[in-house]
Amino acid sequence: MKMSQMFMPTLREVPAEAVVASHRLMMRSGMLRKLGNGLFTYLPLGLRSFRKVENIIRSEMDAAGALEFKPSVVVPGEIWRESGRWETMGEGMLRVKNRVDQELVISPTAEEAFTALLRSEISSYKQLPINVYQINTKYRDEIRPRYGVMRGREFTMKDAYSFHTDDESLDETYRAMGRAYRRVFHRCGLSVIPVKADSGAMGGTGSEEFMVESEVGDNNLILCAKCGYAANDEKAACAPDPVAGSAATDKAYAPIATPRVRTIEELTGFLKTVPQAFIKTLIYRAVNSELDLTAAPGCEKLERMAPASSPAYYPSSFFAVCVRGDLDVNEVKLAATLKASEVELASDRDVERITGAPVGFAGPVGLSSVPVIADLSVMAMHDAVTGALKEDLHFEHVEPGRDFTPWQVADVRTVKAGDKCPNCGDAFYAKKGNELGHIFKLGYKYTKSMNMLYLDENGKQQYPTMGCYGIGVDRTLASIIEEHNDEDGIIWPMSVAPFHVAVVPIKYEGAMKDAADRLYAELGAAGIEVLLDDRNERPGVKFKDMDLIGIPVRIVVGDKNLPNVEVKSRKEKDSALVALGEAASRVADTVRRELAALADVPETAGRP
Amino acid sequence: MKMSQMFMPTLREVPAEAVVASHRLMMRSGMLRKLGNGLFTYLPLGLRSFRKVENIIRSEMDAAGALEFKPSVVVPGEIWRESGRWETMGEGMLRVKNRVDQELVISPTAEEAFTALLRSEISSYKQLPINVYQINTKYRDEIRPRYGVMRGREFTMKDAYSFHTDDESLDETYRAMGRAYRRVFHRCGLSVIPVKADSGAMGGTGSEEFMVESEVGDNNLILCAKCGYAANDEKAACAPDPVAGSAATDKAYAPIATPRVRTIEELTGFLKTVPQAFIKTLIYRAVNSELDLTAAPGCEKLERMAPASSPAYYPSSFFAVCVRGDLDVNEVKLAATLKASEVELASDRDVERITGAPVGFAGPVGLSSVPVIADLSVMAMHDAVTGALKEDLHFEHVEPGRDFTPWQVADVRTVKAGDKCPNCGDAFYAKKGNELGHIFKLGYKYTKSMNMLYLDENGKQQYPTMGCYGIGVDRTLASIIEEHNDEDGIIWPMSVAPFHVAVVPIKYEGAMKDAADRLYAELGAAGIEVLLDDRNERPGVKFKDMDLIGIPVRIVVGDKNLPNVEVKSRKEKDSALVALGEAASRVADTVRRELAALADVPETAGRP
Repeated sequence: MKMSQMFMPTLREVPAEAVVASHRLMMRSGMLRKLGNGLFTYLPLGLRSFRKVENIIRSEMDAAGALEFKPSVVVPGEIWRESGRWETMGEGMLRVKNRVDQELVISPTAEEAFTALLRSEISSYKQLPINVYQINTKYRDEIRPRYGVMRGREFTMKDAYSFHTDDESLDETYRAMGRAYRRVFHRCGLSVIPVKADSGAMGGTGSEEFMVESEVGDNNLILCAKCGYAANDEKAACAPDPVAGSAATDKAYAPIATPRVRTIEELTGFLKTVPQAFIKTLIYRAVNSELDLTAAPGCEKLERMAPASSPAYYPSSFFAVCVRGDLDVNEVKLAATLKASEVELASDRDVERITGAPVGFAGPVGLSSVPVIADLSVMAMHDAVTGALKEDLHFEHVEPGRDFTPWQVADVRTVKAGDKCPNCGDAFYAKKGNELGHIFKLGYKYTKSMNMLYLDENGKQQYPTMGCYGIGVDRTLASIIEEHNDEDGIIWPMSVAPFHVAVVPIKYEGAMKDAADRLYAELGAAGIEVLLDDRNERPGVKFKDMDLIGIPVRIVVGDKNLPNVEVKSRKEKDSALVALGEAASRVADTVRRELAALADVPETAGRP
Repeated sequence: MKMSQMFMPTLREVPAEAVVASHRLMMRSGMLRKLGNGLFTYLPLGLRSFRKVENIIRSEMDAAGALEFKPSVVVPGEIWRESGRWETMGEGMLRVKNRVDQELVISPTAEEAFTALLRSEISSYKQLPINVYQINTKYRDEIRPRYGVMRGREFTMKDAYSFHTDDESLDETYRAMGRAYRRVFHRCGLSVIPVKADSGAMGGTGSEEFMVESEVGDNNLILCAKCGYAANDEKAACAPDPVAGSAATDKAYAPIATPRVRTIEELTGFLKTVPQAFIKTLIYRAVNSELDLTAAPGCEKLERMAPASSPAYYPSSFFAVCVRGDLDVNEVKLAATLKASEVELASDRDVERITGAPVGFAGPVGLSSVPVIADLSVMAMHDAVTGALKEDLHFEHVEPGRDFTPWQVADVRTVKAGDKCPNCGDAFYAKKGNELGHIFKLGYKYTKSMNMLYLDENGKQQYPTMGCYGIGVDRTLASIIEEHNDEDGIIWPMSVAPFHVAVVPIKYEGAMKDAADRLYAELGAAGIEVLLDDRNERPGVKFKDMDLIGIPVRIVVGDKNLPNVEVKSRKEKDSALVALGEAASRVADTVRRELAALADVPETAGRP
């Protein structure tokens, strides 16, 4: 393509809100413009790379046997009511009533749409397994969209959904998708960190997130350099770390006056000891918990909703959560433990009602108004101090298991750098990351709530088990730029570059024009995507633009060098003089070699 | 692809609501399923053809120099307020407020988005002309979606927008788009009728619609067999047809008692004459008229809105519209004449207030409470009868021009089959049609209201003039099926067939399997898209399915014929026996020949 026929408005200045490299460079190189808050337009240059990412994803999905569908983006609210997510998806899901009062949803994801579609089509085990996908527009109403398309409101997602007669079949597809994802990211030139992840609002168990490191990432990754353990801190576990020197006591627990001492800091000062000696007890409110609390302390009169189509749940329930004094409760892990859509710290009033004391004196000993959830760290403690459910009073010499029995013991602590790997015992390090892809085992959540049934080999009705697999196309594109740039601009991997080669005549006239046109024609005939800078601009401007937009190979045609031309790789400093007659075939070879290298995905791609 | 790896749920039964061939066949062949009212999912087979149509459109747009963008589907309401269409688009535009109270629109079209985008980027005449497009999801809240994707709510549209410094440049792009559209439809195997059309809510003048004939079409096409004149009845003109024998009178107009005679039928009976002798006068209410009515009769006190960004308009204004008694008023033509977003017959109360008489006695003579719009047909009348603005009274011997002077003379009548062509005088015939594409000259409507400016050669700020060009992808696909089917199913043109060739072994085993596999491999290697029916079904079922899904060429591999195979074209009755060794190359030639024939677009393609 000739530059004069493109629309590529490069910028020297960048909008102040573009604080990350990909956002800045997508704006500056003329790939992207903002249309509204979290809403973007890809310009022709950006769309070329976008489509390449999309097509890499598509080809790997097809190769893995997934079938492409194209559902509508606007879907009936009705199917979200069936699955129960009309209530639980919250305000991030854009809903609208149309003129005839039908409830519609601008798809944030499509478990419901595909389950609704396939329940009408799948009637027999012979039709399973099936893995279906779309690459389509999604909308999620981010409260604070930022970082360009990295966290926009509208985005394009590849989302696949598989349906199976049994767990083995689901496992097989889940693993195939994991392999496909590793291939996708490798082909895009991306280094990803696959991590175990909490499956959040999607429900179900068994999931893996594909992360890229990012200073503005919204995930905290917990990593082990020794064994390769990698997890989102929303799910990370760690090895038990009993407090050194802490020993069981024979003394009975006893009250100890702690006037106006409420925080761990105040307590450690007052008692002249360390935070590790305290059992911290927090009162949490859980929203829509699906636990069975019928026999749990204090839950006798709790309101329980039992819709026909989805599991029974408690709209609001309370729990006392105990963790060692130096640790924090991870609310995502807690919500997963409580099978709740979310958890939040109880109000001061609720704390007083539940503990019978002001905030600061909660403790598990003698607490019967709510179920007690004890973190694993607590059960390894001895001779501990904890609140005594009375103002200005704590208990000392508390022995977990002797002096109180939690309703449930669980792993709800936040794991941090320095904590020990549960696999190998080495110390963790931490990174911030952004999620590009996510594969889940959903199980029966949607097929049961939406009543999708098939007949098994014995003619018996069964629910299929389900998996789902997503990749954000925009975010993958932005992440490629995050990983491949320097102070001058983007450095595209060949597979996703908008053009493979830039031909830049110093002036587009005379012998230079003839040589540039010849290279343009020869490379085009060889199937190479060429951008010819035929603008009437100073060479400096042309070089700056080409560095900014990051075309992998640049051929400069200058009077002084002819009949040689200067060939330079964007990622290298040095250039080489090549005879005009050989330049096209040599550059075409380079392009093909780099494309082949990216397409040649080792079996272990992306493994930590 | 092998059938066992596809998902192609063919149906014998069709949903009752599928009343047109394309809807029926898209459901039956497993191309499409309904997700909600006017909301559909393309299944893999349907998506293959959909993408081919999309790519034909894309390649013709690119060849015509248009640049592809990808704006978001959800756009800020703000830009619709700027253009003034927030008020005028009505309930067909889906609007939603998000959680932070921002107004959003699910794009029904994108004049606003592209104008907003380019006004920030275009600053100089040197950047013009530019023609930009997208192929993207649109949503229009059809009250009664029907006929499958022919009139759905969500659909995919190619919409292009061009910006120019002058009319000549706009003309050039407009004509280039007209040629590109003719090429698109020819390549899709479609017969289209290009017609002049009213440009409706889009504003501006100069437009052409690309229609396909359809018994359920929502457009009435007025066609001339002799000269090729073709117009939507919303815009069709006709030759003047003065009533034979009608002569001017010298008599002064005079009242004539017409007790309880209100309709034209009652009048013709009462006066023993023909409807052509009457001036029919209807009182219309116009919504948002942009006419300047400051000096018009009865409009002195009319409320006029003058927003800063768009032309001044009257939210509600009234007009008396006169037409010859045997003719009808075309409300679309009338709305265009009145520059109104819509027109409706006035209520009985308004008629009485305006005419001073009950409904049935309106007339232009002496009427000063509203402006009078007279159809051309009225001005050719003589010695006419009309209402006298008093109950049970008419006037006779009325001479238009002598006894009343209309505020405006205009062409507002409905043109029908049998009326005369304005070009050649031949009688019109009529057809029902569906619009597949539409090209418009928009003029300055959006660039002025949204304040898009560039600097001309003299450094002076100017508004660019604008064109817009749309094609419905889904509707084009459905129309191909409407035009190419028989009682057994679809008959795809090669260019848009989901697969070029079907290989059908009578049984997929032994020598038949070997032969089928060989054909599959040979055709695949030749770049031909093959569907291999490897199912364990009876041959009758396989043949029926292949006829239904309409693959252009079928190769049947049967024990009895081997080493020959049977090659049959879907569009022909007879088949031919071909040696297995030659079949692949002969069929590949057929495929290439048919593809080439469709790609070879004559300059006159699609011209009437």
